[in-house]
Amino acid sequence: MREVAVVGVGVTKVAEHWERSLRDLFVEASLKAAEDAGISLRDLDAVYVANMSSGYLQGQEHLGSLMSTWLGVSGIAACKVEAACASGGVAFHQGFLAVASGLYDYVLIGGVEKMSDAITPDILSALIMADDQEYVASTGATFVGLNALVYRAYMEKYKVKQEDIALLAVHDHAYAVNNPYAQFRNEITLEQVLSSPLVADPIHLLESSPTGDGAAAIILAPLEKVKRCNDVVIEVAASRVAVDHLSLNEREDITTMTATIRAAREAYKMAKIDAKDVDVVEMHDAFTALGIINLEDLGFAEKGKGALMVKEGEIEKGGRKPTNLFGGLKARGHPVGATGLYQIVEIVWQLRGQAGKSQVEGAEIGLAQNIGGVGSTVSVNILRRVR
Amino acid sequence: MREVAVVGVGVTKVAEHWERSLRDLFVEASLKAAEDAGISLRDLDAVYVANMSSGYLQGQEHLGSLMSTWLGVSGIAACKVEAACASGGVAFHQGFLAVASGLYDYVLIGGVEKMSDAITPDILSALIMADDQEYVASTGATFVGLNALVYRAYMEKYKVKQEDIALLAVHDHAYAVNNPYAQFRNEITLEQVLSSPLVADPIHLLESSPTGDGAAAIILAPLEKVKRCNDVVIEVAASRVAVDHLSLNEREDITTMTATIRAAREAYKMAKIDAKDVDVVEMHDAFTALGIINLEDLGFAEKGKGALMVKEGEIEKGGRKPTNLFGGLKARGHPVGATGLYQIVEIVWQLRGQAGKSQVEGAEIGLAQNIGGVGSTVSVNILRRVR
Repeated sequence: MREVAVVGVGVTKVAEHWERSLRDLFVEASLKAAEDAGISLRDLDAVYVANMSSGYLQGQEHLGSLMSTWLGVSGIAACKVEAACASGGVAFHQGFLAVASGLYDYVLIGGVEKMSDAITPDILSALIMADDQEYVASTGATFVGLNALVYRAYMEKYKVKQEDIALLAVHDHAYAVNNPYAQFRNEITLEQVLSSPLVADPIHLLESSPTGDGAAAIILAPLEKVKRCNDVVIEVAASRVAVDHLSLNEREDITTMTATIRAAREAYKMAKIDAKDVDVVEMHDAFTALGIINLEDLGFAEKGKGALMVKEGEIEKGGRKPTNLFGGLKARGHPVGATGLYQIVEIVWQLRGQAGKSQVEGAEIGLAQNIGGVGSTVSVNILRRVR
Repeated sequence: MREVAVVGVGVTKVAEHWERSLRDLFVEASLKAAEDAGISLRDLDAVYVANMSSGYLQGQEHLGSLMSTWLGVSGIAACKVEAACASGGVAFHQGFLAVASGLYDYVLIGGVEKMSDAITPDILSALIMADDQEYVASTGATFVGLNALVYRAYMEKYKVKQEDIALLAVHDHAYAVNNPYAQFRNEITLEQVLSSPLVADPIHLLESSPTGDGAAAIILAPLEKVKRCNDVVIEVAASRVAVDHLSLNEREDITTMTATIRAAREAYKMAKIDAKDVDVVEMHDAFTALGIINLEDLGFAEKGKGALMVKEGEIEKGGRKPTNLFGGLKARGHPVGATGLYQIVEIVWQLRGQAGKSQVEGAEIGLAQNIGGVGSTVSVNILRRVR
């Protein structure tokens, strides 16, 4: 396999972009990534578009050709990759394979999702398509409702209190203040979180990632092509994807996401590192309890001890395992198909020393974990600064 | 790049499968492919699912995890690939890259689409999502309507008569008679085609591919793994994808599909062959005129002479360039996301000598061309018998 480097990144602000369409957001992020890479979009050999719900919410499929057209780069290879909320991380994996194979040199992976324009019932319908329509959605379950089952089972099994789990939302908001691209740049208190309305018992509104619009883009190239430059070089040290049984009722234990364990184990092996070597993390905390479970399943805490990491400051900028320092899904926002790519862009900023007030000093190895469904698909991508 | 081989193929019959769901069809095709390959599904490292409209028509996304679950192979990598009607051929390309990269050994690419259950207005809505929702679909254009523009422009530019173009539908039906997996196994006459209702002037009903349900699956592996066996070995000699401007109004000439020319040129180069070296062809004749244009753009006929190839018997089994010998999109059927994989399976049967009454004697090199939108995305995959 050819070694692969990240050479350019770009994002839009996550927001309710009422006056901008899917293509507008995608093009903005892509142009930024190309400028960052110092290349023209015409240098691209392939485009991967990560998106979950454009067919259902915008009446638009075929985003590969559409976005390539609007980037002005017809003639290249392009397609859409979908894996529910993990579409971004999984599309990154496909772009990685495309460059690693040797067939393509410059590959752009762009994620985009637009949810603001849709009415709430349609958004709920779109999100539950991440689970089994025939056996789960048909019962009337919502996506947040399924996560509520996980939350309650986790509290009961490990005797963890909700006020400790909910702290993760406070953490996310505290860091989003410094992220100009975040959807919510305001601090919140634990009291506010716990007194916000229940959206699916026991999940409070302020423990849930919001709906929003956004796009993120990343350009990959062969490592050998960029080693000649004098700038910082960011290598893709590992890229792995794992799926679990789609639905919770098919799993032995819903308080552990085995797809995370599997993808992380394979990624650590591929990068020739251990969990302890990771300097900075972006993980998929669509709901607070899921974020706590991620900290454990990624190997950063023992089972049942994830919330303690948050409480004891271990995921803060100066902590043992700095995590979600741009606001996480709760406060940076969660434009579904784009989220996994926002995470990777944020890791790149950290490794390049471009993370501003969220900068982790000397960060060399960063990990991004992206989840589709309730732990049904997980991507783990590990980046390393090689100079 | 590692060399890649096709080691297993399987399909369902294309039909109106009223009592079977997406997953039923996908699993049937996949089990057949695994049996054909002589492996267990548990040997798979990754699954790619090709599909266009499951979100809109079945309320189901996240087919990567869903299908892996139903195949009983959780833990592996999986995702959905979408490129409108080219989803199958483009997903094959991703599977090819996955094996070529060296990261995965056994990769299953399965395409599935289910259209029978949906009402006609929803099918029309789903299909026009292949073109631009904001600038084209919004005018009220239908997908067949856009193809009608191409048909008429082609007839006028090259002074070709409709009765010559429509012969392609007669050809397709004549060969589908021998294909047990074809949707329509009855012969039709040119008179029947030309007297069938107009669905979008000048396109007659019997010149249009039908709606239907079906699944096709292919298993790839490194060529080095299968070379030890004594059986016939089928190599992926080339796999290329190209996109054009999404919509017809953005192109200089709508009677030539430049994405086909581009993908074919790159594929011939990759396989180190010329168009004349291709022994057997499956091409995307969603409408008769598009099929005629394909014959030209693939390099088999001069512009304006494609219909003459059909009329003079050159695409027959014993002709110069045997094409669509299993019924093509018109008679084998066109279950959108699966079509590109049906084509490749049919090429594999030819190269293995398993094509029954449609067998082209001594076929060594086969080409499959799959189109998304009106020539907006084109994949060209070339297979070669290496023993």
